[in-house]
Amino acid sequence: MQLLGPEAADRLYDAMGSARETSGGSAANTMAGIAAMGGRAAFVGQVAADQLGSIFAHDIRALGVQFDTAPLQSELPTGRCLILVTPDAQRTMNTCPGASHQLRPDALDEALIRSAPLLMLEGYLFGPELPRQTLFHAVEIARSAGNRVAFTLSESVCIAGRREGFQAMIDRGGIDLLFANEEEAVQLTGAADLDGAVRALQLKVPTLVLTRGAAGALALENGARTDVPAVPVQQVVDTTGAGDLFAAGFLAARCKGHGIERQLMTGGIAAAEVISHFGARPIADLAELVRL
Amino acid sequence: MQLLGPEAADRLYDAMGSARETSGGSAANTMAGIAAMGGRAAFVGQVAADQLGSIFAHDIRALGVQFDTAPLQSELPTGRCLILVTPDAQRTMNTCPGASHQLRPDALDEALIRSAPLLMLEGYLFGPELPRQTLFHAVEIARSAGNRVAFTLSESVCIAGRREGFQAMIDRGGIDLLFANEEEAVQLTGAADLDGAVRALQLKVPTLVLTRGAAGALALENGARTDVPAVPVQQVVDTTGAGDLFAAGFLAARCKGHGIERQLMTGGIAAAEVISHFGARPIADLAELVRL
Repeated sequence: MQLLGPEAADRLYDAMGSARETSGGSAANTMAGIAAMGGRAAFVGQVAADQLGSIFAHDIRALGVQFDTAPLQSELPTGRCLILVTPDAQRTMNTCPGASHQLRPDALDEALIRSAPLLMLEGYLFGPELPRQTLFHAVEIARSAGNRVAFTLSESVCIAGRREGFQAMIDRGGIDLLFANEEEAVQLTGAADLDGAVRALQLKVPTLVLTRGAAGALALENGARTDVPAVPVQQVVDTTGAGDLFAAGFLAARCKGHGIERQLMTGGIAAAEVISHFGARPIADLAELVRL
Repeated sequence: MQLLGPEAADRLYDAMGSARETSGGSAANTMAGIAAMGGRAAFVGQVAADQLGSIFAHDIRALGVQFDTAPLQSELPTGRCLILVTPDAQRTMNTCPGASHQLRPDALDEALIRSAPLLMLEGYLFGPELPRQTLFHAVEIARSAGNRVAFTLSESVCIAGRREGFQAMIDRGGIDLLFANEEEAVQLTGAADLDGAVRALQLKVPTLVLTRGAAGALALENGARTDVPAVPVQQVVDTTGAGDLFAAGFLAARCKGHGIERQLMTGGIAAAEVISHFGARPIADLAELVRL
């Protein structure tokens, strides 16, 4: 993943092949997945008052996710990500954050955040100063209401320049539940391997969830480690959204009171669905897949 | 297919589920397919100066199709079609034509049209007065250069109120090559069945091409009828674009000088690809599929 300015994004887009447009965004994908599995979810994030912003708002509301953040009124367009996917399902993400990185602390709906037992934050907004302050403010609101806070590392690039700030947030107990994939966890901790990263992180967060692609996933909670295998996929088409949907399945099962193994398995089912087609939002009926 | 005004389209969109956006448009899909099979193609049609218009222009140019029509400067947005697809691949098309139906005769590039041995027209633009006049003007330019004219009936609704004008155009020998599906041909001619429609149309156009879905396709040319079976498809997902891509394959093979049976077969291959996934533009490598 790399961040691009508007001009570089236009240049890349001109050189790209024809494409398909779908709504995305890490936390938005997770909320979409939770709603698709019958959970209640709201999304806080900022689009612009343009066609792509309208499409984003339509799609997430159509899934039953509450989305009330007002569009940004400025020259900045709705954020977009130009994603190039190879035939073997590897992807390059070129993100032009646009309005999304202008999310201000005063755009937060305090009553909404207080009403949610769990607040989920995405690492993509942890890089730039303004949205990071907004994340911190959201955590304050959630904490003051006694709610839990989950955080997904998103991409290591978002944390790279902010490792100290992020470690500080973890160290002061700001995160109850941390999602990361293997590479992100290793990079964040500077460990030599997965086990090293697990040792470094497991004491810092009450619940640690690590995804490992085809190697499955694991959780550390209450001092116990639970591993699950990956859900088999006929053909991996595009891994975009795998982590987001894993988090969706995990959280949907968790909020229903299921045990940690079932939380991990449900995450794997949702991730398997989203990597079997292009786009980072589920197409198949996730609730039905989980039931089966 | 039904035409919707902006308010009705917004109302329907609000009630729709989350969606995926792809470039489309009947003649544009055909040109995209021709380019994908290595042919040279240009598209004439009008978008607005908005995000969806930019995406349309990007996609068709990225496929190698020349597209130089200036965006419409007005309040009207780029045309869009809200397509609802059922699990058994039936679809309802709700078209909000926007800028596309404002294509004026003076927007045509005469030199471009004169340079093309074949001009292809879509029936969707035959309904309203202004774009119909533009079609007639394009035919005049092509005819004066000694070029051929192809026409696709698109949807019977476009022809319904214009049947006399359309018959007159056919009767005066304005069309060299007519594409239609079985239902459109029957409805246009008022015949009782396919054979009746064939009898009514085969004397009016030098080349008549009729698609019959899973029953294959046929052509009537030089007094001879050629039938081909449909290309087998593992799972029909969405029939949107089937006729457009059939025309693309047919024309690509025709322009390479292949015989009528191969023209029909190539059309079938392109149609089979596009109905095996969502969206009206090919995803797989059509040239490779044809080669195989």
